[in-house]
Amino acid sequence: MEILSLNQLKKLIDIGQLITDLEEGYVLYSEGRVEVPPVGFLNFEDPPGDVHIKYGYIKGDSVYVVKIASGFYNNPKLGISASDGLLLVFSQQTGKLESILLDECYLTDVRTAVGGAVAAKHLAPSNISAIGIVGTGVQAKMQLQMLQHVVDCNNCIIWGRNSEKIEVMVNDIKQNPDFWSKELIIEATTDMNYLTSNCNLIVTTTPAKAPLIMADQVRPGTHITAMGSDDKGKQELDAGLLEKADVLVADSRAQCIQYGEMSHGVNSGMISEDDIIELGNVINDISLGRKNDDQITIADQTGVAVQDIQIAKMVNGLLKTNN
Amino acid sequence: MEILSLNQLKKLIDIGQLITDLEEGYVLYSEGRVEVPPVGFLNFEDPPGDVHIKYGYIKGDSVYVVKIASGFYNNPKLGISASDGLLLVFSQQTGKLESILLDECYLTDVRTAVGGAVAAKHLAPSNISAIGIVGTGVQAKMQLQMLQHVVDCNNCIIWGRNSEKIEVMVNDIKQNPDFWSKELIIEATTDMNYLTSNCNLIVTTTPAKAPLIMADQVRPGTHITAMGSDDKGKQELDAGLLEKADVLVADSRAQCIQYGEMSHGVNSGMISEDDIIELGNVINDISLGRKNDDQITIADQTGVAVQDIQIAKMVNGLLKTNN
Repeated sequence: MEILSLNQLKKLIDIGQLITDLEEGYVLYSEGRVEVPPVGFLNFEDPPGDVHIKYGYIKGDSVYVVKIASGFYNNPKLGISASDGLLLVFSQQTGKLESILLDECYLTDVRTAVGGAVAAKHLAPSNISAIGIVGTGVQAKMQLQMLQHVVDCNNCIIWGRNSEKIEVMVNDIKQNPDFWSKELIIEATTDMNYLTSNCNLIVTTTPAKAPLIMADQVRPGTHITAMGSDDKGKQELDAGLLEKADVLVADSRAQCIQYGEMSHGVNSGMISEDDIIELGNVINDISLGRKNDDQITIADQTGVAVQDIQIAKMVNGLLKTNN
Repeated sequence: MEILSLNQLKKLIDIGQLITDLEEGYVLYSEGRVEVPPVGFLNFEDPPGDVHIKYGYIKGDSVYVVKIASGFYNNPKLGISASDGLLLVFSQQTGKLESILLDECYLTDVRTAVGGAVAAKHLAPSNISAIGIVGTGVQAKMQLQMLQHVVDCNNCIIWGRNSEKIEVMVNDIKQNPDFWSKELIIEATTDMNYLTSNCNLIVTTTPAKAPLIMADQVRPGTHITAMGSDDKGKQELDAGLLEKADVLVADSRAQCIQYGEMSHGVNSGMISEDDIIELGNVINDISLGRKNDDQITIADQTGVAVQDIQIAKMVNGLLKTNN
């Protein structure tokens, strides 16, 4: 049995391999071959905190995975991060614990960002003028970084409400020589029109509760991956944009209809559930996705447990190979 | 963060302390101060296996606990034990992981056996003629061993269906110099009448699916702890015995009515739900329990998550003190 710290884990992540593994995971999920029971919750009042316990497995696979992730919102006052977590990988043959990945939520961040890259790989137009990143948090940076593995474009525009936060993010990127393999040209803006007029691959990564991008702002030929809406009440895209789009893709149709961007479209009657296909279906049959470079495509990502299973299995597999 | 192996854990168990901690736990549980969400399950077909994920906390306490326990029934063919498990102890203040207890189900076995000792401590008659143990498995041995901490009796009678299994158990006990602090006199029998006529403190520990002890076999002044019935369809005691008994105690009334011994009494109409009190109530108010040495008392134990919380917290606390 192996126990890995965050620093040890970081050295084991192979983004190319993970893209392939997540593609496989999304396909298996959409084929109904992933067992994911309902998430377990613990809620604390004083101090305030939430714990999510997620667990599942791919049928006939080598492992099953349990993830425990927490948010304790007073932690920053104590000088420690609010979020924490770990993943446990067990054998599906014997139930024996194979590895403990003390990832402090890093693997969740990576699998989320690589999920965005997988969506862009299968849905973005053939030529990217510039990448647009909406938001300035951890995922804003990570989603951008992962896109270099799937598209050939070295221009990006970062949008944020707050100029100082954009500056922190841009400086972070510039000071990290490993961030981008070539030279990345970064522009910053607080004007969404500037971003949408210049970018045809956009990723939204905010916890917004009202639309940031309206239907009439989006040019033909744009792909948008929206990953901020992971709970009821959150919304980054105007429901009219969903109606305007040519292809609507969800990582999990059931989840996106319940609390993703798609929920606002379905609830307002501007789209129907049948308009939405799953990412796993598009990966399996590319004809279901973008048909030409003039279409607008939207991928809604709420996060699915098979992403956790696949990243934990990848690391666990590398541990076995290295031993 | 500490990680403990089974051997390290075994050295940290203080039975006296654990009895006190479980008493406190049962009381808090019966006062509604323990948060225990529904158990999570994973089921595997090939090879067959079950995983239970249990988690919870005492409100206002220092920690929360997650337990993952599995049974993979083909393991013995591979020369490894069918059951396995671990407990994770997290801070209720920050969510940070404090310890990983790789107990391989040992802590579950201990907390279950000490739960039996707690029931005997509060419900057994004042003088024990002999301890009767029904069954020859792991719990049969452990329940017996734990009773020396709560009653002053060095005579026991072990009942089993299978003479060979009884012999194995008796030899195991005799070869373990740490099993009993004084000299333990052990008799073995396959005759339940012999056990019930000679013992006034009885623990049933079998996976029986039909009653092993009938109402007319039990003498006045006997206490029985039944811990075998932890699932629907299991039964060790005749429902008529529940009707005959003077005091009926459940570790969890809700659970015992659903799938413990009490379920057979309630379902047959021989007892009503209102006849059953909880162990935590008896610990809190001894007048609710045995009133004299002629009463028959029965404790039904299905196992409650607060036992896991308390044993994990005890070990975690000792780790902190030792550091």
